[in-house]
Amino acid sequence: MKIKPLGERVLVEPVKEGEVAKGGIIIPESAKEKPQEGVVIAVGTGKIDKDGKKIPFNVKKGDLVLMPKYGGTEVKVDGKEYQIMREEDILAIIG
Amino acid sequence: MKIKPLGERVLVEPVKEGEVAKGGIIIPESAKEKPQEGVVIAVGTGKIDKDGKKIPFNVKKGDLVLMPKYGGTEVKVDGKEYQIMREEDILAIIG
Amino acid sequence: MKIKPLGERVLVEPVKEGEVAKGGIIIPESAKEKPQEGVVIAVGTGKIDKDGKKIPFNVKKGDLVLMPKYGGTEVKVDGKEYQIMREEDILAIIG
Amino acid sequence: MKIKPLGERVLVEPVKEGEVAKGGIIIPESAKEKPQEGVVIAVGTGKIDKDGKKIPFNVKKGDLVLMPKYGGTEVKVDGKEYQIMREEDILAIIG
Amino acid sequence: MKIKPLGERVLVEPVKEGEVAKGGIIIPESAKEKPQEGVVIAVGTGKIDKDGKKIPFNVKKGDLVLMPKYGGTEVKVDGKEYQIMREEDILAIIG
Amino acid sequence: MKIKPLGERVLVEPVKEGEVAKGGIIIPESAKEKPQEGVVIAVGTGKIDKDGKKIPFNVKKGDLVLMPKYGGTEVKVDGKEYQIMREEDILAIIG
Amino acid sequence: MKIKPLGERVLVEPVKEGEVAKGGIIIPESAKEKPQEGVVIAVGTGKIDKDGKKIPFNVKKGDLVLMPKYGGTEVKVDGKEYQIMREEDILAIIG
Repeated sequence: MKIKPLGERVLVEPVKEGEVAKGGIIIPESAKEKPQEGVVIAVGTGKIDKDGKKIPFNVKKGDLVLMPKYGGTEVKVDGKEYQIMREEDILAIIG
Repeated sequence: MKIKPLGERVLVEPVKEGEVAKGGIIIPESAKEKPQEGVVIAVGTGKIDKDGKKIPFNVKKGDLVLMPKYGGTEVKVDGKEYQIMREEDILAIIG
Repeated sequence: MKIKPLGERVLVEPVKEGEVAKGGIIIPESAKEKPQEGVVIAVGTGKIDKDGKKIPFNVKKGDLVLMPKYGGTEVKVDGKEYQIMREEDILAIIG
Repeated sequence: MKIKPLGERVLVEPVKEGEVAKGGIIIPESAKEKPQEGVVIAVGTGKIDKDGKKIPFNVKKGDLVLMPKYGGTEVKVDGKEYQIMREEDILAIIG
Repeated sequence: MKIKPLGERVLVEPVKEGEVAKGGIIIPESAKEKPQEGVVIAVGTGKIDKDGKKIPFNVKKGDLVLMPKYGGTEVKVDGKEYQIMREEDILAIIG
Repeated sequence: MKIKPLGERVLVEPVKEGEVAKGGIIIPESAKEKPQEGVVIAVGTGKIDKDGKKIPFNVKKGDLVLMPKYGGTEVKVDGKEYQIMREEDILAIIG
Repeated sequence: MKIKPLGERVLVEPVKEGEVAKGGIIIPESAKEKPQEGVVIAVGTGKIDKDGKKIPFNVKKGDLVLMPKYGGTEVKVDGKEYQIMREEDILAIIG
């Protein structure tokens, strides 16, 4: 089964809190807006600019990203948890 | 009888909660904003861009989609329940 | 007497609640935002795009439409009740 | 004395409530947003589009219009009451 | 001393309430948003449109205008009170 | 040490309240939004228009300006107090 | 490990409060919105203008900047604290 996010959305699999985060980033407990690591599983159908052309995504499948913890919509597919969020809400690519 | 949604709206038939969802997606009980599966029945008359051209839809009749549960307007036609919602509120295509 | 709505507005005659709705649509009692059927009586003077050209309407005189119940302004002309609303607030054309 | 409304504003003389409205429109007591009839006395200096050209008005001096009752600014000139409002707030031309 | 308002702002000297207003306009006590007469003393450095060209002002030095009473910023120069406000907040030119 | 404001910001040194304001402007005690005099110390890196060109500033280094008292961000450099604010928040140039 | 901020975001390493700020700027205790010094570590993938071209950044790696204290998202990488914020929220470059 495949999920194709609509428009400028992306599908991200969050790195679980108990796991050792791949990016080695530690989020301070005191942080106002806690970010979270995740892996991009699929990018959306694309955002259309004013001339009808699709704007390319800055992230691609497989990218390890830093994202706000409650910025997307949670879904569970085949037992795995994912987040669907707008690309512009992703904070950074970790590489 | 036919319903043609206006502008960028689409007509979606939600997959009932008791049924086995076609897409196999499980929505966690703890999810803040619960999405729901549905089938696209009709796309709208189209959204006009700044040059007067119609912007094509990303979804088409028959697509299985993931949508927010309370994001549209409920209507009942010939005994069936539907949702009329803007295409940009649809989260993903399941395929 | 004639009423010409201004700009992108349309004049709609609602189908009274007691009547058998022409479109056969039943609005569930539980619906959050109850839509209502109506017949388009007149379209507006037109909306101007950025190049000064009028954008065509998606609805035309005589169309049976589905509209939000409290989305327009009520007026009574020659004993009949009408709604003046923006075209973009109409949900769908029933045909 | 002359009043020239600025920009896209128009000067309208409301038809007094006690008078027989010229347009024959009755506003239901139950109406949420009560419209009111009025006569256009003067149109504004014009709204400028993105290319510096003035956008023509849809109403002209002498037009009988339907307008929201509290949508403008009241002024009294030579003993007569007027409303200065943006043209886009006028609902319809009655003719 | 000279004051040059910035951008689309204008400098207006209000006609004092005790004086006989030059324009002969009476503001009803019941008015929700009380307008006030004033004389334009200086127009701003100009508003820039999307192509970098300055958009001309609709009012000029010496114009008697109708303006909202609390729409600007009060300043006192050489013992006289003025208002600095955006041109689009001026309601009408009285002439 | 030099401070270069970012984008459309400007760096202004306020005229202290105890000093005789250079521009001779008296701010009435009753004023809702108290403006304040200041001297422009530096203009920003520039605002970009839609074609990628920098939009010129209306104020320049050395200009005596009228600005809202609490419209910017206070900073202290080498013992002097400054305000960093957007140029569009400056009310007028005094000259 | 490298962090590439997304879009118009930048990664900044704040100068710790106990350290002697490089820029010599003192933030008054009474300041409403306390700015803070920091060093730019990385600029984002770029903001796209309406023609699909990337808009250049005004700051570059190594720049000492003045930024609002709580304007970004805190992250900790390899034991160091950083802020990810939009470039337009940076107040000034100190040089």
